[in-house]
Amino acid sequence: MEYTFSDNLGSLKPSAIREIFKSLTDPSIISFAAGNPAPQSFPADALADLAADIFKNNAAVALQYGITEGYTPLRQAVARRLREKFGIGRAIDTTIITSGGTQGLELCCRALCSRGDVVLAEDPSFIGALNSFRACGAETVGVPLGADGIDPAALEAAILAHPRTKLLYLIPTFQNPSGITTSWEKRKAIYEIARRHGVMILEDNPYGELRFAGEDIPTIKSIDEEGIVVYCSSFSKILSAGMRVGYVCAPDAVVQKMVVGKQCEDVHTNLFFQMITYRYMTEYDLDGHIREIQDIYRHKCTLMLGCLDAAMPKGFTFTRPEGGLFIWCTMPDGIPMMDFVKRALERKVAVVPGSAFLCDPTAESHSVRLNYSTPSDDDIRRGTAVLGTLAADMLRERG
Amino acid sequence: MEYTFSDNLGSLKPSAIREIFKSLTDPSIISFAAGNPAPQSFPADALADLAADIFKNNAAVALQYGITEGYTPLRQAVARRLREKFGIGRAIDTTIITSGGTQGLELCCRALCSRGDVVLAEDPSFIGALNSFRACGAETVGVPLGADGIDPAALEAAILAHPRTKLLYLIPTFQNPSGITTSWEKRKAIYEIARRHGVMILEDNPYGELRFAGEDIPTIKSIDEEGIVVYCSSFSKILSAGMRVGYVCAPDAVVQKMVVGKQCEDVHTNLFFQMITYRYMTEYDLDGHIREIQDIYRHKCTLMLGCLDAAMPKGFTFTRPEGGLFIWCTMPDGIPMMDFVKRALERKVAVVPGSAFLCDPTAESHSVRLNYSTPSDDDIRRGTAVLGTLAADMLRERG
Repeated sequence: MEYTFSDNLGSLKPSAIREIFKSLTDPSIISFAAGNPAPQSFPADALADLAADIFKNNAAVALQYGITEGYTPLRQAVARRLREKFGIGRAIDTTIITSGGTQGLELCCRALCSRGDVVLAEDPSFIGALNSFRACGAETVGVPLGADGIDPAALEAAILAHPRTKLLYLIPTFQNPSGITTSWEKRKAIYEIARRHGVMILEDNPYGELRFAGEDIPTIKSIDEEGIVVYCSSFSKILSAGMRVGYVCAPDAVVQKMVVGKQCEDVHTNLFFQMITYRYMTEYDLDGHIREIQDIYRHKCTLMLGCLDAAMPKGFTFTRPEGGLFIWCTMPDGIPMMDFVKRALERKVAVVPGSAFLCDPTAESHSVRLNYSTPSDDDIRRGTAVLGTLAADMLRERG
Repeated sequence: MEYTFSDNLGSLKPSAIREIFKSLTDPSIISFAAGNPAPQSFPADALADLAADIFKNNAAVALQYGITEGYTPLRQAVARRLREKFGIGRAIDTTIITSGGTQGLELCCRALCSRGDVVLAEDPSFIGALNSFRACGAETVGVPLGADGIDPAALEAAILAHPRTKLLYLIPTFQNPSGITTSWEKRKAIYEIARRHGVMILEDNPYGELRFAGEDIPTIKSIDEEGIVVYCSSFSKILSAGMRVGYVCAPDAVVQKMVVGKQCEDVHTNLFFQMITYRYMTEYDLDGHIREIQDIYRHKCTLMLGCLDAAMPKGFTFTRPEGGLFIWCTMPDGIPMMDFVKRALERKVAVVPGSAFLCDPTAESHSVRLNYSTPSDDDIRRGTAVLGTLAADMLRERG
């Protein structure tokens, strides 16, 4: 049988990161390529106690079908936390539970975008989200990401150049892959431009709670008086990534359409882990636990940046994130990025080529993404030394 | 802000069943409207023991990100069971894990169908699947369901009348909503017609293991030499519906495209419950557990049919399923089905109107769906008596 595939999925390839991730079964490779939270960020003992209690006292509910919007006590707890800690959620907004943060991004695009509509995104951006948009038939168009976010004038020009723009996708805080945080001034300017042009903003904030330095900056959703922002986040980086529990806070009309889409995709999110998450939020010290994760990542990020400062020759530059999981390393002129990635892998260090994160996958990139949450301290020391030697070799070869 | 929604989701409404399900919070209502497995069908104690062990010995894996295709030991265990018990799975086929059976149905359509392509389905059919197909932009067209499946000649006529037919969706065993099982002769004839016309078959078999009477009939997938059948099922009816663990066995080329779609939707299925499912399959007596569920449903179905035989006046007819969860009740001429449903609800008995399951939602139906897996024995007795009295009242009024 010759198979012919749909317009939306036919040309879509599996994510390059995911393919790299699958090839990392060689235990001798030091991986800076993953995006996994540190294992210590999952409070396994507390979750085990809660699981035992739910099996004992509430198994009939936890194992049965639930409703698509999510477990009501969890929805209420998330909505309360968003309101009290982040100033998010007005009368027009509704909070629902999704199967990880990615489902929220995908459902937002699925609800709003028809085939050929345009999603603008920071360039580079999270490849998983870009693929989700493409799977909905949307076209992804990049707006170059500067040191403190995209340029508002460039955003407006992009909207004008693409009249079918429906959505602006942003990770304003500790962006993946760059680690960059959009400034408060730019957040306000971006919101104002989107509002003026009737473009919805999809604000993705999976790393926002992982700040280990600097001052918090309010989310874009916190200033959303007009109901143009769909806010997505998840518990993947603070409780468990494998459980797939995320959430969306967005204008009710948009949420209702996303719920229809979610019903078609998976009916509802794993109910048992929705109940565990609710119990953890209300019976344990979630904020205290998050502070412990911040300590781990502060240590690991500081260590990696220190090692890179010591090891990498002049001309290689890095972002200096105040939170999140990633550092973005940019090569000097004349150092071909893909050669660097391939030769690093030959020397048993894996990094992700920056081209994997571009809205136009054929465009050239001079950067790589480095992850510090997954490798051990020793691997961070040894891996950065390998990268430093390679960089020096390549500079010497360039002459 | 005025929101405009996508072509695919814009006109899609939440499922009528789901809305009925949400309105059933009144505990005085006897519900024959749900599709929930009996609570006894979830082996909670065994799952609790396995969960405790996984938290103790394997939490770092279970709480971390997994791969999109699913937990490898579970994929292998499912593939082995499909091969050994059902003769399913050839060299061209691959088995992956999905977030419930519904995700497999949706991903199959998403991979194969572009906007405007046609999915043929038994009429009536499972409304959740029909909506999933519509959410992918496909048009659903019904082929009337007879007492032993759709008519092969009618199927061929429908394919010829709809040149954009890509997919034929079937629940051949204990169909939802009708409880009807497609005969072996018709399965072979349907396969042959689909093969000849290059139409893929999506075989949905969530109830196949719930046979409590009669002889097993081989699945259509078991005769699929050509690689035209995508087979979907789940653990929802035999281990837990709330955990959302299902699976697909289909030609590898199709599966690969579905994996790309799944990555865009939820990255992977809850890993902890994939591990629990694998452990249960390999350390407990799954077949013995299924026999216990069959005993429960044999009892409940026999009870409901006996009560209906005694209570319902002549002219009301029922299917007599040999497994699954549902009985399909058809009204005599001159009894308006929606009136029956509304008046039953006034008398505190909920049933689902047959129109909710039609491919053309504006078409007329003279049937309702009755579920026997969820209500207690006492509710089955009392609820059927109420329906019998109502039926007699309506016949008398008709004159």
